[in-house]
Amino acid sequence: MFKINEDYLKLQGSYLFSMIGKKVAAYQKENPDKSIIRLGIGDVTQPLAPVIIEALHRAVDEMGSADTFHGYAPDLGYEFLRNAIADNDYKARGCDISADEVFVSDGAKCDSGNIQEIFAKDNKIAVCDPVYPVYIDTNVMAGRTGTFNKETETWSDVIYMPCTGENDFKPELPKKQPDLIYLCFPNNPTGGTITKDELQEWVDYANKVGAVIIYDAAYEAYITESNVPHTIYECDGARTCAIELRSFSKNAGFTGLRLGAAIVPKDLKSGDVSLHSLWARRHGTKYNGAPYIVQKAGEAVYSEAGKAQLKEQVAYYMNNATTIYNGLKDAGFEVSGGINAPYIWLKTPGNLSSWEFFDLLLSKAGVVGTPGSGFGPSGEGYFRLTAFGTHENTVKAIAKIRENI
Amino acid sequence: MFKINEDYLKLQGSYLFSMIGKKVAAYQKENPDKSIIRLGIGDVTQPLAPVIIEALHRAVDEMGSADTFHGYAPDLGYEFLRNAIADNDYKARGCDISADEVFVSDGAKCDSGNIQEIFAKDNKIAVCDPVYPVYIDTNVMAGRTGTFNKETETWSDVIYMPCTGENDFKPELPKKQPDLIYLCFPNNPTGGTITKDELQEWVDYANKVGAVIIYDAAYEAYITESNVPHTIYECDGARTCAIELRSFSKNAGFTGLRLGAAIVPKDLKSGDVSLHSLWARRHGTKYNGAPYIVQKAGEAVYSEAGKAQLKEQVAYYMNNATTIYNGLKDAGFEVSGGINAPYIWLKTPGNLSSWEFFDLLLSKAGVVGTPGSGFGPSGEGYFRLTAFGTHENTVKAIAKIRENI
Repeated sequence: MFKINEDYLKLQGSYLFSMIGKKVAAYQKENPDKSIIRLGIGDVTQPLAPVIIEALHRAVDEMGSADTFHGYAPDLGYEFLRNAIADNDYKARGCDISADEVFVSDGAKCDSGNIQEIFAKDNKIAVCDPVYPVYIDTNVMAGRTGTFNKETETWSDVIYMPCTGENDFKPELPKKQPDLIYLCFPNNPTGGTITKDELQEWVDYANKVGAVIIYDAAYEAYITESNVPHTIYECDGARTCAIELRSFSKNAGFTGLRLGAAIVPKDLKSGDVSLHSLWARRHGTKYNGAPYIVQKAGEAVYSEAGKAQLKEQVAYYMNNATTIYNGLKDAGFEVSGGINAPYIWLKTPGNLSSWEFFDLLLSKAGVVGTPGSGFGPSGEGYFRLTAFGTHENTVKAIAKIRENI
Repeated sequence: MFKINEDYLKLQGSYLFSMIGKKVAAYQKENPDKSIIRLGIGDVTQPLAPVIIEALHRAVDEMGSADTFHGYAPDLGYEFLRNAIADNDYKARGCDISADEVFVSDGAKCDSGNIQEIFAKDNKIAVCDPVYPVYIDTNVMAGRTGTFNKETETWSDVIYMPCTGENDFKPELPKKQPDLIYLCFPNNPTGGTITKDELQEWVDYANKVGAVIIYDAAYEAYITESNVPHTIYECDGARTCAIELRSFSKNAGFTGLRLGAAIVPKDLKSGDVSLHSLWARRHGTKYNGAPYIVQKAGEAVYSEAGKAQLKEQVAYYMNNATTIYNGLKDAGFEVSGGINAPYIWLKTPGNLSSWEFFDLLLSKAGVVGTPGSGFGPSGEGYFRLTAFGTHENTVKAIAKIRENI
């Protein structure tokens, strides 16, 4: 008689964004005449840049002709894209990452969910609190997190690193020793970040205690301050302790195209075994490569025209971030983020819980955001708004919030 | 100090097709003047059908305009594609599968590798021998297969169901009781299949012993005989014991586009827990949907024009299958498969081992095939050729084999 993976049953409630989707759908059904502005889920709204559309059309045409048709992609990604990533995101910044350390994937969500597979089940993970739920949930599904305490809303075997207004949303080195440390800077959900010197401390710590940092750099393109690192490999010693996850979703609007990459340096080893070889084996066995046409679109991101067009797109969203940040600050809200990230993190007014504020914002202002408590217990009393809406909607949303809340 | 997943180290050798790739590359390096015909890996060679190219272009244009841009896809797939699959592959055949039991994915390789995750680690798997390596390797990585016996080339905790000339390449019900049964019909690698009545016996057996059948229907489009089932849901009772995996790779040439679907009926339960809910949770947590443009291409497969064009494409490959089958049979080879599948399975002549025959075929005829032993111990002494080459190359390859072997 077959049995299920009981660890799945430990998962708490529904995946955060599914829950929001359900609440919004219910509200819309009850209020069919009311319009809603979504600044909740981190999905982009601007269309793909012209240079990417052109690259897609060209690649589609290639697929229609026997001479230029592309079947199975190389498991680890096409050379042209691995080279473009290594050259532009690493070598151009003086970071020692080679093309064969780049693993092309269908997005950072999959990579951040799958990467835990190559580690032992009894490894202890450390996460920021609040945190992108996928890091924890995928470890729950793997049986790595112990038992859930409903009162504290924490897992017994997870090391939480609180990030609140008290520490300027910057995690402190954990007191208990972790094996895997998930870091995301610029951060989702808080929009905060740390300096290169501060990240160097994490790299030194990881090397000292023999931990692996899983560094999620999905929001790197939004960095505006010069002392904020664009990749963990700007830090000395990161090649022996860090895996970096990259996304094309936010810098190039690929949320619906699906493209990402994981960087696994060959120097990252456990005894004789390189994590690079394990991840290569996983890709080769469980994955069949990202679509050729999507990888060609990814290549176009790094063309001169691509860089120019995407710089504009990022600026468009960061203009929204400024609109939200300044608008809410002027109205007396306590806000952070929004400088190096497309997320604004605000303290709920009047000691409302995050979900109470969600309901208030939806019903009074018709604005959908994301409750901070959905990202972890230290997110309680906070709320995330994203800069990924249209500018028109963003301006309207802030006006509605200022009028009605 | 972090530790790795030790189960990965149990994996035997390199993934079969990587090994073949390396051997061919080495041969080409040593013999740069010799041409090679690849009838090894199951990759297609015909370009995407015009109706699919048109659908891709239209979808790309949609992504370039704010009004029609598509960001994150629904985790489980767009309704339009889930409906098309449910209607055409199931309802049209009288099978009771609804659209919300269809989970769109980026291909059957990923689904067949990931599906084991929702089951307990101590579940026992049964596989045909020979078998598509992904079924076993992904269970090895999950620690489900016990220890490897190098002499018998089998795993201690895997139930093998030999498929050889002696049983007409049809597996017999296992003597030990399995929890998960992987079946693939029409079969990769043997090209054999079973009748609907024979599949009904498997469904009855699974329901009786409480096992789940993971039914890989990737080659369904190649069926030519009327008593061969196109889906396991043609059998009574399959809704309570079977998950079906579908692919767009072979019926529509999507090997480079990446699209598949898993069917998980809501009646398939362990106690109160439906496997449907577990798989939905996995999709929602670890996956972010197939690209919109690829799902639109998938929809075009089911249009009237799509059906007509793909019928021709399948006929093209099946003409190759006939060419290989008849050509080798006339030359005195012992061949099977090729009637309801794009694979021809042949007995190596003169008691050569599968890899010996691989080397002979490569060096004497310049033809690349797949050694049967790469698919399991009962594949030793057999060899797979695929019908996915161009017709010209297929004819040439058979002529070269007949001349030189």
